[in-house]
Amino acid sequence: MTGLTVALDAMGGDFGPQVTVPAAVQALLQYPSLNLLLFGDQSAITTQLSSLNSTHHPRLTVVHCDHAIADHTRPSQALRQSQGSSMRRALDAVAEGDADACVSAGNTGALMALARYTLKQLPGVERPALVSAIPSRNGGKTWLLDLGANVSCDADTLFQFAVMGSVLAEQEMTGRPPRVALLNIGSEEIKGNDLVKRCASMLSRSPDVHYIGYVEGNELYDGKADVVVCDGFVGNVSLKTSEGVANLFIESFKQAVSQHPIKRLIAKWLFSDLFRQIQSLNPDQYNGASLLGLRGIVVKSHGSADIAALTNAIGEAVHEIKRKIPAKISDRLEHVLLERHF
Amino acid sequence: MTGLTVALDAMGGDFGPQVTVPAAVQALLQYPSLNLLLFGDQSAITTQLSSLNSTHHPRLTVVHCDHAIADHTRPSQALRQSQGSSMRRALDAVAEGDADACVSAGNTGALMALARYTLKQLPGVERPALVSAIPSRNGGKTWLLDLGANVSCDADTLFQFAVMGSVLAEQEMTGRPPRVALLNIGSEEIKGNDLVKRCASMLSRSPDVHYIGYVEGNELYDGKADVVVCDGFVGNVSLKTSEGVANLFIESFKQAVSQHPIKRLIAKWLFSDLFRQIQSLNPDQYNGASLLGLRGIVVKSHGSADIAALTNAIGEAVHEIKRKIPAKISDRLEHVLLERHF
Repeated sequence: MTGLTVALDAMGGDFGPQVTVPAAVQALLQYPSLNLLLFGDQSAITTQLSSLNSTHHPRLTVVHCDHAIADHTRPSQALRQSQGSSMRRALDAVAEGDADACVSAGNTGALMALARYTLKQLPGVERPALVSAIPSRNGGKTWLLDLGANVSCDADTLFQFAVMGSVLAEQEMTGRPPRVALLNIGSEEIKGNDLVKRCASMLSRSPDVHYIGYVEGNELYDGKADVVVCDGFVGNVSLKTSEGVANLFIESFKQAVSQHPIKRLIAKWLFSDLFRQIQSLNPDQYNGASLLGLRGIVVKSHGSADIAALTNAIGEAVHEIKRKIPAKISDRLEHVLLERHF
Repeated sequence: MTGLTVALDAMGGDFGPQVTVPAAVQALLQYPSLNLLLFGDQSAITTQLSSLNSTHHPRLTVVHCDHAIADHTRPSQALRQSQGSSMRRALDAVAEGDADACVSAGNTGALMALARYTLKQLPGVERPALVSAIPSRNGGKTWLLDLGANVSCDADTLFQFAVMGSVLAEQEMTGRPPRVALLNIGSEEIKGNDLVKRCASMLSRSPDVHYIGYVEGNELYDGKADVVVCDGFVGNVSLKTSEGVANLFIESFKQAVSQHPIKRLIAKWLFSDLFRQIQSLNPDQYNGASLLGLRGIVVKSHGSADIAALTNAIGEAVHEIKRKIPAKISDRLEHVLLERHF
């Protein structure tokens, strides 16, 4: 295995270096060939590193940046103010070939705008999409996109999302092509809005996507589809609603067992399988949404990610570097575009 | 308490009279002043009634209908074929004053189209909305609308949904006006699509709605807002996604305790609170979405509702009859329209 380099925006997220630095150290332990470039405030990063006895880690380099992009900054403003910021410099490292991927838990709109500006889209890509895997009932995964990078889309854009999602999903599948579905408010052909109906008609004619029809919100976790496509508004609401419900259950469960130490012990004995299952539904396990369609790998972590969750986001970047995702998407899109034209 | 009459479409839903008839008998037990008109196939209904020893219930009348509207029927087709169907006759009973409300678990699109045709909208209402209550973390309720009656909306329509939802919510609140929010993909003002931004600007200027800003999907169950407004596509996906995740947890929980009878006994003894709490998150508890904005009460049950869930939908109709919801919505809308014009 050759060396891998990930550029980490150490200032992004609700907790900044308090979470990003321990996650970086954890990721270096997990991936022996990983190199990390940490972009951010040198003194804040060094304080964290020394408390972890990792000041001189051979595979970690700190690059001082004098400011960070705030969470409330508009994308257009972020573009103007980005020079020298931790997010911009982490993306520049990818654009200039110093890193293979960028990970940030910062402002999503700013990350999308800066990523498009620095890395550019792959040939033929109209708009990059934010994608993440969600767990399915059968123990598998379903890739859901777009998760909020594009608040409104046309049918062509959704079609491209289907192609890009398919390429990502097939890296983890063997024996059959990924089943692609559109998220809709009914399973019958007549249901839905014009956008979904137009895209359904395009997908059902395409030889490049194994389109299986519509899925509804309650089927997202059934494992009926490997890739589920929707616009960014719907995808974001759906993913965040899932997180809300999952956290409600996890909290109820924790509360029921935490008040009484003996109950807790018995609960652990009774429900060890359930604890594992519930943990597997914890949104943090699936942290790390990828921006697909760019000439480089960019992974967006939850702003509220804890150390384990951010480590998972870095893991996602490593995974995509090894699988050369941007090159594979580019090849497939070229093929799809050629097929449409001839 | 005066008598209440509910017209029930006995053929609607995945199980037809097998569920609707036992639910009717159950509802009559629960509400001593309730009268029920059951519309559907006389022989199928009578078979169910006799198996429940309720053939001659003094508060239950069967009205034979020779057909039912199928689940895959398009709304336009349903309108043409509706004459004599169980759904249409149940709605006609409300339009003609023979019943105070209609309950159906049938085809949502058809129910919406037929309800608009038979009952008509209240003065000033652009489009009726489908609304339901969801449980919140603090033990309260949040009303979410629209849930799929309108796949695309403009800002005026969303504004009306906010007014109508507010009227419904305030029936169960005292001491403060309902807090109304828009469902969005971020809490900052700059986030979201044009529709949400335009409606936010209207709501923040309106003295008739206590508008508190945006909520995100993960905050739906936090009890931050009493009414959450969105278009029907987004609302349907969000509600169904919630149901999918809740069912996943409930199933995991059941599976963990059902495999071992001794475990089940200990679990029930130790974790009765948790069982209750998890049961309270069961979507069936909240079955019964109302079509708001019509000159009559129409409650839509889940197609897959079981007996308990359908009984809850009938209970929702009783509740709205007692609170005279359509008259209250009409008064408020008149007030809002007057205020806008003068």
